[in-house]
Amino acid sequence: MAALKKNIVVIGGGTGSFVVLSGLKEYPLELTAIVAVTDDGGSTGRLRDEFGFLPVGDMRQCIAALSVGDGEPDLTKKLLLYRFSKGEGLEGHNLGNLILTALEDLAGSESKALEYASKIFRLKGKVLPASLRLVKLAAQYKSGKKIISEAKIEKHKIKPGDKISKLYTVPKTKINPKAKQAILKADAIILGPGDLFASTITNLIVGGAKEAIQKSKAKIIYLVNLMTTLYQTEGFTTKDHVQTLEQYLGRKVNYILINKTKPPKSILKIYEKSGEKVVKDDLLNDKRAKRLDLLSPKMIIKAKGDKLKRSLLRHDPHKVAQAILNILWKLK
Amino acid sequence: MAALKKNIVVIGGGTGSFVVLSGLKEYPLELTAIVAVTDDGGSTGRLRDEFGFLPVGDMRQCIAALSVGDGEPDLTKKLLLYRFSKGEGLEGHNLGNLILTALEDLAGSESKALEYASKIFRLKGKVLPASLRLVKLAAQYKSGKKIISEAKIEKHKIKPGDKISKLYTVPKTKINPKAKQAILKADAIILGPGDLFASTITNLIVGGAKEAIQKSKAKIIYLVNLMTTLYQTEGFTTKDHVQTLEQYLGRKVNYILINKTKPPKSILKIYEKSGEKVVKDDLLNDKRAKRLDLLSPKMIIKAKGDKLKRSLLRHDPHKVAQAILNILWKLK
Repeated sequence: MAALKKNIVVIGGGTGSFVVLSGLKEYPLELTAIVAVTDDGGSTGRLRDEFGFLPVGDMRQCIAALSVGDGEPDLTKKLLLYRFSKGEGLEGHNLGNLILTALEDLAGSESKALEYASKIFRLKGKVLPASLRLVKLAAQYKSGKKIISEAKIEKHKIKPGDKISKLYTVPKTKINPKAKQAILKADAIILGPGDLFASTITNLIVGGAKEAIQKSKAKIIYLVNLMTTLYQTEGFTTKDHVQTLEQYLGRKVNYILINKTKPPKSILKIYEKSGEKVVKDDLLNDKRAKRLDLLSPKMIIKAKGDKLKRSLLRHDPHKVAQAILNILWKLK
Repeated sequence: MAALKKNIVVIGGGTGSFVVLSGLKEYPLELTAIVAVTDDGGSTGRLRDEFGFLPVGDMRQCIAALSVGDGEPDLTKKLLLYRFSKGEGLEGHNLGNLILTALEDLAGSESKALEYASKIFRLKGKVLPASLRLVKLAAQYKSGKKIISEAKIEKHKIKPGDKISKLYTVPKTKINPKAKQAILKADAIILGPGDLFASTITNLIVGGAKEAIQKSKAKIIYLVNLMTTLYQTEGFTTKDHVQTLEQYLGRKVNYILINKTKPPKSILKIYEKSGEKVVKDDLLNDKRAKRLDLLSPKMIIKAKGDKLKRSLLRHDPHKVAQAILNILWKLK
């Protein structure tokens, strides 16, 4: 068990990190989740606009993943993920988002609020915003076009041949010093799954993040997405994902975990209607790539009261954790 | 320490029970709070109307009082009592109310929701709704007038000479079986402080409550209110409070705790503007009455985002607990 009690940093947005953390929290690891701060859509966007705090949605998912059940399995997790399906002004709001907003108001800072949440919900790990400044995600496209706002980037229809050429924040911001420390002392850094630009790379473009990752001796494990993302990674292969990520990392990824299980055709059809396809694997001669069954047998459907589209296909938390542990065990 | 590990039942609404429970939870007692279910105003009323669950406001206050801090003193309490001061549709809502509403929805029943809350927030005692049916409070007046709705009763201006002659619920309801059990095995039952009709007696008019209290060997300790309540107990003396309560109890109160400390004149003036005065003490020859300093040195002011009027004068949790403990120690 030489790999245990290692320092693991999980970098991402809400949904992908939720899967990775849910799986890893069952093992005696020192977990730190570094969470994107550029979300400006949905319940999170409404609260961000009205209260002026850092966006809470992705943090809430990481907190839920790391929370402890206390007798009733997944009770705290369910409470934090609960979405109001009615109630004037409440509908569509997520209770965990409201709890975090209240904590930010009570605590006076996002860092302190996350410490408080950690105490109240007895988290098996730390949750740190990538940056402490309220910023917007911005994309420059090959065509010259610029879009500011994560929600708008997600909806921006790309013309054939066009693609995101540079991702940055407006205004510029620096990495959260605690996140930097966690990266520097990490044994492994897990990136993905999740929207390549809006959930993963968005964490790497805060000032000093790239340098900290370059300096860190951590092995980098990348979980490639199951599906392409409409507009943002249309037509991207596994190699495209890895190469794009490495541009922003400034170093090579050490391990690439690719799902090899074919999703059910009925579900692929739903994705195809939205223009999203299975990520084609063209890393066949790359020794860093490991092909494993990582697919969750549970297909996620729209939650009650949830107006947002949610992926039907997910990585499986336990399979992902097992794959990561198999790598960690081999590390010195 | 013969009095410790005794079964104590605290019957009331939100604010008064909050004070009593906050004080008593520091001692090794088996605490059960039986909570009124007739509130239909404010944030609680909005949620009651929109979700159709039992009113959550008074339960939330009892849960907050019994919650444990986990390193950060009163952190969970502050979170549960947090009121949104902005946010479209959120303003005026209380986070604890939203948490309880979500738990009721997740759990499928109020009883189960309270068990869940007890686990998540590690409560030092149980919180039980007086009844499990959604009912309205109704008052019949000496004049013959009937008013249905707690919020309306609180606002109903009484003509000179008129008063509430009978309090009941619409529809009729029975006592929560768990509340009945707690009353039957109690060593002491604490009633008050709190609005005599809307917070205290409202718990006694559910079917079977009176009979359980009559059957119970528990000593009854009554904390008389500091101030009269506009319209409802205008001009009521300490004796009026005790006699009215005893009508609904069907038995005598064993101990009457009366505050003897004069509140500051500046604050009494604020109360007088709302037609509320210090409860005049005319129980001078009653051996059950104990006159003690029970006044909190902290004057409660309107919370941020709170549109409701809140009392400025409160009983002190620690002084109240001490007074109750002094009685419990003498019990066999």
